[in-house]
Amino acid sequence: MYGKLIKPELDELLQSRNFSTIKELFEDMHPSEIAEILQDIEGTDRLVLFRLLPQDVSADTFTYFESDEQHDLLKLMGKEEAAHILNDMFADDRTKLLEDLPPNVVRELISQLSPQEKLIALTLLNYPEDSVGRLMTSEYLAIKEDMSVLEVLQFIRENGKDSETLNMIYVIGDDGTLIDDIRIRDLLLSPLNSTIKDLRDEQFAALEVNQPQEEAVSVFKKYDRFALPVIDSNGKLVGIVTSDDVLDVAEEEATEDIQKLGGMEALEYPYLATPLFEMVRKRGGWLIILFFSEMLTATALGFFESKIEKAVVLALFLPLIISSGGNSGSQAASLMVRALAVGDVNLRDWWIVFRKELLTGVFLGAILGSIGFLRIVIWSKFTNMYGANPILLGLTIGFSLVGVVLWGTMSGSMLPFVMKKLGFDPAASSAPFVATLVDVTGIVIYFTVASALLAGTYL
Amino acid sequence: MYGKLIKPELDELLQSRNFSTIKELFEDMHPSEIAEILQDIEGTDRLVLFRLLPQDVSADTFTYFESDEQHDLLKLMGKEEAAHILNDMFADDRTKLLEDLPPNVVRELISQLSPQEKLIALTLLNYPEDSVGRLMTSEYLAIKEDMSVLEVLQFIRENGKDSETLNMIYVIGDDGTLIDDIRIRDLLLSPLNSTIKDLRDEQFAALEVNQPQEEAVSVFKKYDRFALPVIDSNGKLVGIVTSDDVLDVAEEEATEDIQKLGGMEALEYPYLATPLFEMVRKRGGWLIILFFSEMLTATALGFFESKIEKAVVLALFLPLIISSGGNSGSQAASLMVRALAVGDVNLRDWWIVFRKELLTGVFLGAILGSIGFLRIVIWSKFTNMYGANPILLGLTIGFSLVGVVLWGTMSGSMLPFVMKKLGFDPAASSAPFVATLVDVTGIVIYFTVASALLAGTYL
Repeated sequence: MYGKLIKPELDELLQSRNFSTIKELFEDMHPSEIAEILQDIEGTDRLVLFRLLPQDVSADTFTYFESDEQHDLLKLMGKEEAAHILNDMFADDRTKLLEDLPPNVVRELISQLSPQEKLIALTLLNYPEDSVGRLMTSEYLAIKEDMSVLEVLQFIRENGKDSETLNMIYVIGDDGTLIDDIRIRDLLLSPLNSTIKDLRDEQFAALEVNQPQEEAVSVFKKYDRFALPVIDSNGKLVGIVTSDDVLDVAEEEATEDIQKLGGMEALEYPYLATPLFEMVRKRGGWLIILFFSEMLTATALGFFESKIEKAVVLALFLPLIISSGGNSGSQAASLMVRALAVGDVNLRDWWIVFRKELLTGVFLGAILGSIGFLRIVIWSKFTNMYGANPILLGLTIGFSLVGVVLWGTMSGSMLPFVMKKLGFDPAASSAPFVATLVDVTGIVIYFTVASALLAGTYL
Repeated sequence: MYGKLIKPELDELLQSRNFSTIKELFEDMHPSEIAEILQDIEGTDRLVLFRLLPQDVSADTFTYFESDEQHDLLKLMGKEEAAHILNDMFADDRTKLLEDLPPNVVRELISQLSPQEKLIALTLLNYPEDSVGRLMTSEYLAIKEDMSVLEVLQFIRENGKDSETLNMIYVIGDDGTLIDDIRIRDLLLSPLNSTIKDLRDEQFAALEVNQPQEEAVSVFKKYDRFALPVIDSNGKLVGIVTSDDVLDVAEEEATEDIQKLGGMEALEYPYLATPLFEMVRKRGGWLIILFFSEMLTATALGFFESKIEKAVVLALFLPLIISSGGNSGSQAASLMVRALAVGDVNLRDWWIVFRKELLTGVFLGAILGSIGFLRIVIWSKFTNMYGANPILLGLTIGFSLVGVVLWGTMSGSMLPFVMKKLGFDPAASSAPFVATLVDVTGIVIYFTVASALLAGTYL
């Protein structure tokens, strides 16, 4: 919004090389607002404007760019300038950027960092992708329990410049083991001469450095914290994770799940930043898999060709029946995938879910089956299309719907459990995937019911 | 996890009425862990255990229950006990609870609150549902700019007991207008005799009390904050929103979108807590709507009945063709709904999306069309099922696929924009809904192509 409003003015200032006014303009803005404005400026002009920012603002502003924009800007910069920006970024934001760059560029950039930042960058990049380690920042404060409140406040005043959050400080033992966390709030509310030992409640929550990032989201939701400490396998404090990064993770995870549920591979970049070829690849891959599976419908129908020849009317209701199975399957799959993702339901709940879905499927099937039956019987008063025995045809459609909807509900709800149990991502049991599975079996159910009920009349 | 491990032990202690040991057991636990354990205990035993908690822990523990469990527990308690718990809860957590209760229960409970808490509760409940106002807590600290750092630290020590977060304090003018925010961090890092005026940077971000909660998520993502102040339409500071609540909103919004995308109404409670009847209603409603729309496929096919009679082979490929349209539509719809929800794409980008999807659709259609063509031509070497002219049949299937996939992609991607433009929730353009729309048109496309290409041979 902001960007759009200010753009004409900025273009004019750029044209007339009125850099001092631009500088003043930027002075009153938050880095995220500056980033928003720069995103609307193309090519080298963006770098020109970026270089006008005061040193302490530029790294912050850089953090707010999308990762493809960060890459573009880095490419335009000299190596030293790039290293400068990276040195000033928070460690967690820098890790996120480096993750996406080609390995040779990463090596090059890291070699330009200051020795201290180089060590931090390399350590963080050593943790597995999508692990809590990659989200960590090393800008936190750790204290020993024998310090007094006054000493700690003094310590914060002297060493707190780099801490990303000063909401919490962490108490460590002599070997670096995390033994407690203290809210700044409790510090400020305590008499200055009490020691940290007096303040300790010996309760703390911590993340494990190798934990998947998804789990961090649930831990944050559970403890309602703004930051959580991270420990290694020996219990040593190695970093902290802040809630802003966890919000990003939660949003990204949900986006990936939605894209997978829609029947495609998850995109790495936002929609508009994804190149056409990549888009076709991520969507085409699954479409082809689904297409091959769906070919089985033609094979299945091949077996029933003679029946369709005898009663073409059966073909008319084919899409209605199989899509009802697909729809109920999509519902159940989407519901379960999300419930598993946010922990509303666990693997061990499969039996409870099984029974609940069985009942739900029977009810839903009965509702659609009755509507289907009535539709045929009522319509048959006005048309001859449905042949001599509309009641029998109606029963065929009705019972097929019960079977297909029940089957769709059961496979849609159980497939995510099977996926998870086998170690796959439940979200891969996407709505289209379930619908395709159910289509093939739906055809078999439909023609089996038809063969049983219509033998001697239509067939 | 915790709960499961400790349950046998706890059951035994309950049986033997060994309450003092239970009390000790709870002493070392975080309220969220206690809540987890209590959730596994049924009925009045839960209340018995709950009453063993120290007063300052019980309101916190209560906050961690699911809302249906909160209702159950409140029902078991006497009115006074319930009011006591509500008095001690943070205002935002209490609002969340009251939102879901029947109006007469809410009135009853509010009347039992202390005058101060009653005023807060009524004010918060006055804001529209899903507005930022409902997320607010009034536990924050506001200061005037002429105070010194030392005075502010003193002020915090005296008044900070109730503040949900002491990460930030807010600077207000004489009329209560929010004029700045100051990080506690900056306070702690400043000389004690400087005044707030010296520390002010005159930059702050704030939420509007009537803004939708979804927007709060984007604002938090933009500014990377742990808490944001909330102002009314006159710019007066009325509360704060903390990031833990925003994480909850983000997760809930994503869950709702996923459920809607799966073709159902969003559930109010988690899966396991949703009663069967409600489940059937939320899913059955949409299934019936989809079923009625899908009936149009039978109508559409009715028009082409004579063609199917002449060439039954056309019926064999019907599911393959319409489901390919449905799948490409699901992909595009899921992608767009999420991109619109997180702001990757805006309404004004529709034309960029239109062009990109047009190209994507053509590519995807060409890929599937070629596979379909080849499948028929190759298969026809081994079977007579495909009739005298498999190349012509293959071309029919191939071109239909191009048309149907392109059509699916375009409707799937544009429908969410249309929904949003018309003021509806884009997530209502669910995968099954798009698939159903595309099924009907897919049939028309398929038989039109067939009529054109196969006239004189098959037809």
